[in-house]
Amino acid sequence: MTKKWVYLFTEFGQALKDVGNVWDEARGLLGGKGANLADMARINVPVPPGFTVTTEACRAYIESGNVFPEGMWEQMKESMGVIESQAGKRFGGKENPLLVSCRSGAKFSMPGMMDTVLNVGLNDETAESMANLTGDPRFVYDSYRRLIQMYGTVVRGLPDELFENVIHRVKLKANVQNDTDLSEAHLREITHEFKALFLRNVGHEFPSDPYQQLSWATEAVFKSWNSKRAMDYRNATGIPHDLGTAVSIVAMVFGNMGNDCATGVAMTRDGSTGERHMEGDYLTNAQGEDVVAGIRQTCDIGLLKKEMPKAYAELAGIAKRLEEHYRDMQDIEFTIEKQKLWMLQTRDGKRTARATVRIAVDMAEEGLISREEAVLRVSPEHVDFFLHPQFDNSAIVLARNQGRLLARGLNVSPGAACGMVVFDANRAEAWAKEGKSVIMARPETKPDDVHGMLASKGIMTSRGGRTSHAALVARQFGRPAVVGISSLEIDVDKRQMTVNNKVIIEGEWLSLDGNTGEIFEGNIETLIPDIKDPWLIKLLSWADEFRRLEIWANADYPHDAKLARSYGAQGIGLCRSEHMFFEAERLVHVQKMIMSNYPMERREALEAVQVFQRDDFIKLFRVMQGLPVVIRLIDPPLHEFLPNRIDLLRDLADLKIRLQHAGNLKEIDGLISMVKEKETILERVERLYEQNPMLGLRGIRLGILIPEIISMQVRAIFEAVCQVKKEGMDVYLKIMIPLVSHANELKIMKSRIEDEASKIVQDHAIQFDYQFGTMIELPRAALTADKIAEYVSFVSFGTNDLTQTTYGISRDDAETGFLIEYIDKGILPDNPFAILDKDGVGELIRIAVEKGRSRRDDLECGICGEHGGEPKSIHLCNALKLNYVSCSPYRVPVARIAAAHASIQERKANRKGPDSY
Amino acid sequence: MTKKWVYLFTEFGQALKDVGNVWDEARGLLGGKGANLADMARINVPVPPGFTVTTEACRAYIESGNVFPEGMWEQMKESMGVIESQAGKRFGGKENPLLVSCRSGAKFSMPGMMDTVLNVGLNDETAESMANLTGDPRFVYDSYRRLIQMYGTVVRGLPDELFENVIHRVKLKANVQNDTDLSEAHLREITHEFKALFLRNVGHEFPSDPYQQLSWATEAVFKSWNSKRAMDYRNATGIPHDLGTAVSIVAMVFGNMGNDCATGVAMTRDGSTGERHMEGDYLTNAQGEDVVAGIRQTCDIGLLKKEMPKAYAELAGIAKRLEEHYRDMQDIEFTIEKQKLWMLQTRDGKRTARATVRIAVDMAEEGLISREEAVLRVSPEHVDFFLHPQFDNSAIVLARNQGRLLARGLNVSPGAACGMVVFDANRAEAWAKEGKSVIMARPETKPDDVHGMLASKGIMTSRGGRTSHAALVARQFGRPAVVGISSLEIDVDKRQMTVNNKVIIEGEWLSLDGNTGEIFEGNIETLIPDIKDPWLIKLLSWADEFRRLEIWANADYPHDAKLARSYGAQGIGLCRSEHMFFEAERLVHVQKMIMSNYPMERREALEAVQVFQRDDFIKLFRVMQGLPVVIRLIDPPLHEFLPNRIDLLRDLADLKIRLQHAGNLKEIDGLISMVKEKETILERVERLYEQNPMLGLRGIRLGILIPEIISMQVRAIFEAVCQVKKEGMDVYLKIMIPLVSHANELKIMKSRIEDEASKIVQDHAIQFDYQFGTMIELPRAALTADKIAEYVSFVSFGTNDLTQTTYGISRDDAETGFLIEYIDKGILPDNPFAILDKDGVGELIRIAVEKGRSRRDDLECGICGEHGGEPKSIHLCNALKLNYVSCSPYRVPVARIAAAHASIQERKANRKGPDSY
Repeated sequence: MTKKWVYLFTEFGQALKDVGNVWDEARGLLGGKGANLADMARINVPVPPGFTVTTEACRAYIESGNVFPEGMWEQMKESMGVIESQAGKRFGGKENPLLVSCRSGAKFSMPGMMDTVLNVGLNDETAESMANLTGDPRFVYDSYRRLIQMYGTVVRGLPDELFENVIHRVKLKANVQNDTDLSEAHLREITHEFKALFLRNVGHEFPSDPYQQLSWATEAVFKSWNSKRAMDYRNATGIPHDLGTAVSIVAMVFGNMGNDCATGVAMTRDGSTGERHMEGDYLTNAQGEDVVAGIRQTCDIGLLKKEMPKAYAELAGIAKRLEEHYRDMQDIEFTIEKQKLWMLQTRDGKRTARATVRIAVDMAEEGLISREEAVLRVSPEHVDFFLHPQFDNSAIVLARNQGRLLARGLNVSPGAACGMVVFDANRAEAWAKEGKSVIMARPETKPDDVHGMLASKGIMTSRGGRTSHAALVARQFGRPAVVGISSLEIDVDKRQMTVNNKVIIEGEWLSLDGNTGEIFEGNIETLIPDIKDPWLIKLLSWADEFRRLEIWANADYPHDAKLARSYGAQGIGLCRSEHMFFEAERLVHVQKMIMSNYPMERREALEAVQVFQRDDFIKLFRVMQGLPVVIRLIDPPLHEFLPNRIDLLRDLADLKIRLQHAGNLKEIDGLISMVKEKETILERVERLYEQNPMLGLRGIRLGILIPEIISMQVRAIFEAVCQVKKEGMDVYLKIMIPLVSHANELKIMKSRIEDEASKIVQDHAIQFDYQFGTMIELPRAALTADKIAEYVSFVSFGTNDLTQTTYGISRDDAETGFLIEYIDKGILPDNPFAILDKDGVGELIRIAVEKGRSRRDDLECGICGEHGGEPKSIHLCNALKLNYVSCSPYRVPVARIAAAHASIQERKANRKGPDSY
Repeated sequence: MTKKWVYLFTEFGQALKDVGNVWDEARGLLGGKGANLADMARINVPVPPGFTVTTEACRAYIESGNVFPEGMWEQMKESMGVIESQAGKRFGGKENPLLVSCRSGAKFSMPGMMDTVLNVGLNDETAESMANLTGDPRFVYDSYRRLIQMYGTVVRGLPDELFENVIHRVKLKANVQNDTDLSEAHLREITHEFKALFLRNVGHEFPSDPYQQLSWATEAVFKSWNSKRAMDYRNATGIPHDLGTAVSIVAMVFGNMGNDCATGVAMTRDGSTGERHMEGDYLTNAQGEDVVAGIRQTCDIGLLKKEMPKAYAELAGIAKRLEEHYRDMQDIEFTIEKQKLWMLQTRDGKRTARATVRIAVDMAEEGLISREEAVLRVSPEHVDFFLHPQFDNSAIVLARNQGRLLARGLNVSPGAACGMVVFDANRAEAWAKEGKSVIMARPETKPDDVHGMLASKGIMTSRGGRTSHAALVARQFGRPAVVGISSLEIDVDKRQMTVNNKVIIEGEWLSLDGNTGEIFEGNIETLIPDIKDPWLIKLLSWADEFRRLEIWANADYPHDAKLARSYGAQGIGLCRSEHMFFEAERLVHVQKMIMSNYPMERREALEAVQVFQRDDFIKLFRVMQGLPVVIRLIDPPLHEFLPNRIDLLRDLADLKIRLQHAGNLKEIDGLISMVKEKETILERVERLYEQNPMLGLRGIRLGILIPEIISMQVRAIFEAVCQVKKEGMDVYLKIMIPLVSHANELKIMKSRIEDEASKIVQDHAIQFDYQFGTMIELPRAALTADKIAEYVSFVSFGTNDLTQTTYGISRDDAETGFLIEYIDKGILPDNPFAILDKDGVGELIRIAVEKGRSRRDDLECGICGEHGGEPKSIHLCNALKLNYVSCSPYRVPVARIAAAHASIQERKANRKGPDSY
């Protein structure tokens, strides 16, 4: 018995059974489109009769070097017979000819990436029959010319322009503007010319045998699985290349049989905002391709309610049923043939991050899904999107007042973007590789343009609607986009565009607001917004209920801490106390301290810094009252506070040359004193010079060698705590020591700090607890965490430095050097500074947590490297049983959702069996 | 019942029982000297009657703030009674007075470091009795004046010069040269003056009560445990400070009762060479202190055979018995009182490294000890000693011909040393701290001089013999030394010395040959000797039978490999292939390669290097035929082959200033072209600049980015193998890749090397196996050794870099920086670059070995960092189940013995129970 390669829509039950009753497997077998049509048929949604050739058939076809697998064609022909009887029409029949569409459909949706052939079955004979039967020869020849055009371009690879030129010529001759204005005669002429064009360019006649057409069309769809654009798309989205596409053969229904026909696409909810109303576009008297191609200006679905109220009502009812059935917002295609509604496709709808959040929350509140499911549907990337740059409102007002507003279009993908305008995808990609910020402007976008869209900061088109290709792709990849800017004319050849009589040359700067649909000249200042979306707030609060990891923030200044707290941070995991040194008014004292030759001098300089530090800490503690604050004592090497060595050498060389040329004594004296000053600093810089500062005199090493700095910091911290406690607020102080490699270092430092602290506490007569901890950012600290745990109550993994030492990679050098090539060539799966390295750094963390808690079972473990805000790394931290992750304030919401996912997935995995970690 | 603080010599059985019958504990209780005297008594060796006050008593005395513990004094008095009856004399008795010595004796020998008081019991009355009894008043007053002198200096802390001045004055007045020439009258006068001097300086009379003297003397010995010199010595030798000393009270026997009396010290074998004959010094008519103090010129023990044949024969017989009893070479003290031989002390004799080896081998062959014991008696330091510098013979011949031979003395401690001469210990220490090489020259040395001796490269004295303080200490600490240079006169005040009428000022360079006893002017070239000592060869061959670890060597050049092989290396564990690049004729091509802008240019430059590399490898393989050779491909960053960045900047600045002053066009042209050249190099250096080169573009990273270098090296290696194979020799090639952090790097590199190699092998039509391996020198490589083991058959731990990354310490910076302070302050127990860090780096090695062998159970694991030649680290490597250690050729013999110790101790520990590691 040969394999079953073909399933009728009415055989969905059989297909499900064959794959073990797993919906996902059925989708894998029949493709999303095929499975959905069959599934819709099962729940009595009106779908045209049809069948699906499986993805297995596609794979077999590709693997055998483009040969249909044995039995497939026979099964297709047999199924055609069934459709014929279901439709009461005959394929190639003169009386009542059946036309079919050949639609691609893979397991994962790849909108527009693969080929579709419509009107299969039309030839001179059936066309005439159809004309007779429908009494609408205009429509028939429109379909016929479309079929030839599609065969020519899709199956035979002729340039579309050849066909469009013919139409253009006929339209000129007929003096009409729109395709719909062409008469039957014009379309017959076009059909005729298309056939001649086909013969001329292909070398044989356009095939009149419908089964020949069907066979070719099926092959074309199979082959389009491995087209360049499809492969690019899969590379960009991470879809595997070995899945193959299914082909669904569906009896054609016609939206182009007159003005009581229509075709359209719709989302069951607003894909941009998530609002609970159907959103979509349709065209009267048109085929579906016209809608998505963005060539004709579409109508809003709302209009359909007025034009065809009955069909609209039915559509709305089906939309609700489909949402309930699939428990998600649906993206549907429909055709109205002479008032009769047919559903051609349904699938989970693409949506913006904002819509994703709102829909998830709404559906949970509607009872369609659980809260857990709602949380899982919102990815960290979705949350991140809320943190995308937006234009500064006052900058926008200013730009408007300056007359820099160029145009308005449809706001299809939110966020703000600035960049140099380019007019094709290749150049967009090329410029982006050079490090330029790019805005891509196109009349419309096609799947071939995706690589350019990915390379751009923002996208704008002169045509197309909310469901145009440009809108969908931009939304999915989080690129701000404005489409349908009708005042915009782009001349790709001249490399310029005209908008309201203003000419913009390629390379000029534009600013694009995906929230408002506005385009401005020049560069507008952007801001990271505060998250106020109520649905997001609700969703994150649900996420908080699921997660085990606490989310803390890295914040050095009171205003950072405030922001972090507003984003839901549960503490400060890292306050880099020396960051405060870098402000101009303080740096001068810090430098004086470093340049000091006598302890007195040094202490004086430090006292000046102490005042600043104490006041900063007071403000920080006030903001964070009631929550823990980890203050890390000085970390960087001292030379970071002095001028650069090379700069000093160059300056000195310059000064000496100037000295050679100096004209008068006063000038010479001045130059000599400058030389002396620079030489003094240089001498100190050289004394502090290290070949590998990353592995040098910093962190606790500095603290042990120059205890005065630590004393100053400890006094500043404890005086600040005393002050804030006196104000009646709670302070949960945690003192953290960086760069420990041996427990003995902590032993010394701990007693020094305790001595210093007890003096302050006695002076102020205030009692409070504080905790003593350390960073683990060197492999040796991780490996000896049991010994370290004798002295500390918490450890925080500094994964930036820990990655550097574990990998032996200097981040400053490598991220602009060999690391890029390593990631490009796939030698490293990821940049370990972006995504925590599980096998190396993660293993050290695992060892450290295990050893540390073997000594002190309540040892608090956190992470304060940049990985703390990266979702994959957060999953790893959850698996490693850390207590918290600490990340930049802006990453706090992202970390909250990622931590929730980690907990939920862990719980699910535990339900299934032992965790694989 | 009060504690037993005092044991009679005849109570040794009781003492042993009290400490649980452990000899070592008895030694701890009674001190080495006391235990040995008691033990000798047990085996019927003639020792004077006596008893020992225990170390416990000393500790109790010190702990209670210098109060005798309860009951001690009573027990001492009681024991005095026993001695009185054993000796038939009475302490303080007028008739037949007993005199006793009070001798210090700790668990571990500290020669000359603590105090001893002799002739306790003498006063005006007993002196007269003694004079009557012995008929030798001269001796009695000599003893009496000695007692007062000792009390004055030792108990009361008066300067010895006060007493010596008196003697000097009397001698001048009497017109005699030697102490022995002084008459009874002179000695009575001296005694009288000494008592007056005592009263004047101390404030009361010299005590006449013998028990008062005994009590004070005991206290003096107790206190001397914590004297500065004793503490210095213990710090230097690692003896704990809390052991305390015992005090042995022994009936005095007299070597100074006339010319039929003598006293001496002897070694049962030659402490310098290990030869099997008694070696020692004695003095006729003298007390023991005269011998060791080195004040009088002693006689060789050989002379005693002629002078007192009966006593000598008895002494020789006792020496043999003691060696058999203690199964080791003995250091004995004896006194002959009127022809009667008394043994005063025996202990294991100090000896040179050479003697240690020979005695161990001889004793094993004599059947006194096992071979295992012989191997354990020779420490790695002993073997190391054989590798100490020796003068180049031709340089010595030349120096003699140039008349630079200054003097000859006794060759008491072998090895060659050059340095600036200094005349006191403090200055020697100070100069050494400044980094100077120092030779210390003294009339004689005393315990106070030890810190200066330790700081010196070599030691020379004008007086003293083979058992003088200078000789003993120098030998123990491995300092070359020449003593008894009679032609030498040192004037410490004038800071100069005169030798054969030549004046040498402090600070002039001298060269000292401890092997020949010669002193030369100026600096003489030194060589590391080849080890040819037949006893060492035999001992190392025994060691080889015990060890499990193989010993390989790090060698980059054929001559290093040859040396390594001659030292017993079993393979080359690390050939740093790029070291060959640095030779002048090659460096030019390497630089050209780095400066190349076109691949052609680069390949040409590399081809030139390849020829050199191949020829080097051919020579290396020939030398190592039959043994494995690990060749590591290029490791250092490219900028190491170019001039230093800072130098270039400075040069450029100078050139530009010169350009300002240039006088004529030709000069200007020349300078401009130099500027351009420097700028081109600088540009490349800046492009290659890295902030942390230690963590940068080197090792396999370089190989992946610039494959041409690896190709060149692989071709050179494989062509060399083909050549040597054709010559009929065996080559065991192992290719090693440095700085791997991810297994994928090896995957790529392995296939590249295999491709390149297979081409060469095909061209030469020769079949051979080779192995592919990697260094593990980054923590991540260790943590993922299982994945790495998929691609390699061996790994070699590069513990230098692994220590840097594990600790996060840049060795170049830290070893002259904070690391010194860390070790000084005891924050780190050892320098981790000298001694492998067990808890951190060792833990990573343990993990790597375990994971690596879990994937490939025959994974060969070695170590090729500098730790490979360090004994403690070798013990750790043995425990970590490595296959081999690879070290510098000069360390191979040291590593062989250390590895044997590790194996033997491991086996012993396993016999006892589970290993503690």
